[in-house]
Amino acid sequence: MAAGRKLKLYGMALSANVVRVATALNEKGLDFDIVPVDLRSAAHKQPDFLALNPFGQIPVLQDGDEVLYESRAINRYIATKYKAEGADLLPASASPAKLEVWLEVESHHFYPAISELVFQLLIKPLLGGAPDQAVVDKHAGALAKVLDIYDAHLAGNRYLAGDHFTLADANHMSYLLYLTKTPMAELLMSRPHVKAWWDDISARPAWKKTAAAIPFPPAA
Amino acid sequence: MAAGRKLKLYGMALSANVVRVATALNEKGLDFDIVPVDLRSAAHKQPDFLALNPFGQIPVLQDGDEVLYESRAINRYIATKYKAEGADLLPASASPAKLEVWLEVESHHFYPAISELVFQLLIKPLLGGAPDQAVVDKHAGALAKVLDIYDAHLAGNRYLAGDHFTLADANHMSYLLYLTKTPMAELLMSRPHVKAWWDDISARPAWKKTAAAIPFPPAA
Repeated sequence: MAAGRKLKLYGMALSANVVRVATALNEKGLDFDIVPVDLRSAAHKQPDFLALNPFGQIPVLQDGDEVLYESRAINRYIATKYKAEGADLLPASASPAKLEVWLEVESHHFYPAISELVFQLLIKPLLGGAPDQAVVDKHAGALAKVLDIYDAHLAGNRYLAGDHFTLADANHMSYLLYLTKTPMAELLMSRPHVKAWWDDISARPAWKKTAAAIPFPPAA
Repeated sequence: MAAGRKLKLYGMALSANVVRVATALNEKGLDFDIVPVDLRSAAHKQPDFLALNPFGQIPVLQDGDEVLYESRAINRYIATKYKAEGADLLPASASPAKLEVWLEVESHHFYPAISELVFQLLIKPLLGGAPDQAVVDKHAGALAKVLDIYDAHLAGNRYLAGDHFTLADANHMSYLLYLTKTPMAELLMSRPHVKAWWDDISARPAWKKTAAAIPFPPAA
């Protein structure tokens, strides 16, 4: 990477969507600074931030003159632009069909269930609120059904796109880690093929670096 | 394409998510059969369909030995595998950053607002139901905000990823057409840059073929 091109990742380091991007950046061995955006003071709704992302959400990535938002868009851009650096997250050895399908399964099945569950069980209590049990039950049920399908798929595939770790796996990792910090970690741990997959991918050195940088509060 | 490799698109031809895939197939000039899946008789929840898509949703694409689901995954697969056929939906001349961002904006901002609005105003009445006005108002408001951002972006970009039509544009077209069939077409037509973009992309010959094949009922 050219000098002076250090990447800037705008967001709160505790946000799982920000961590999703850090996962890809660390797999690539790219050097980046986190530029804090304090959601509690609504910094993401101020004009200077809206000039970066008109939708007013974190994360945002600045790479030289390029400014990107939407964590999955950022990760695909990183995986493509920096293909030759670090781990190849879009390897030719992966099944293109499985790769595309499981990227979208993350986005439209896994994420809607797990993100609400993590919000209710982990983030809301940090902000001083209590989980809404009806919402928890609904999304735990949805996530269980989704992870049953993952378990069946991972019984015949070491990774989501076949024999190799790809962006499809990487995009899941932040929320899987956050789930393990909730009282509902069993949703992951009780499914043998999902657990074996998680044990494998969470042992990656790049992931250990990513996870170590998350400012989780001390356990109560 | 090799003989005997005619693609099969499983779904109801009226489904906007099925039409999203037909949009890409027609831009590529690929020959395909629609294999009907009758949602009204819950055919998508039967074992033979769940063997194709364990999530029990349409569309599904069968391309020889490959079976894919999730319409955006299918479209990216088509755009990549058949890059040399028909329109290049991932042209090197497009901005990779804009392309990735606007593919995800469609998925996470445009779609959640417009799909519920189309359901309430177009699909539900077809099924004999009445729109829920509170849901309509909420999603119309959300879509208006999203389309304001599109209008600003399209003021400086002919297409979503810059100077060339790409998959990011194509993925929006089915729901934009469906919106024009509702009493809320003004959400699109009242924004000059969004309207100019729609006028441009909906004049494409491949799109005219796609739209002509949608079995809309006669206007009441």
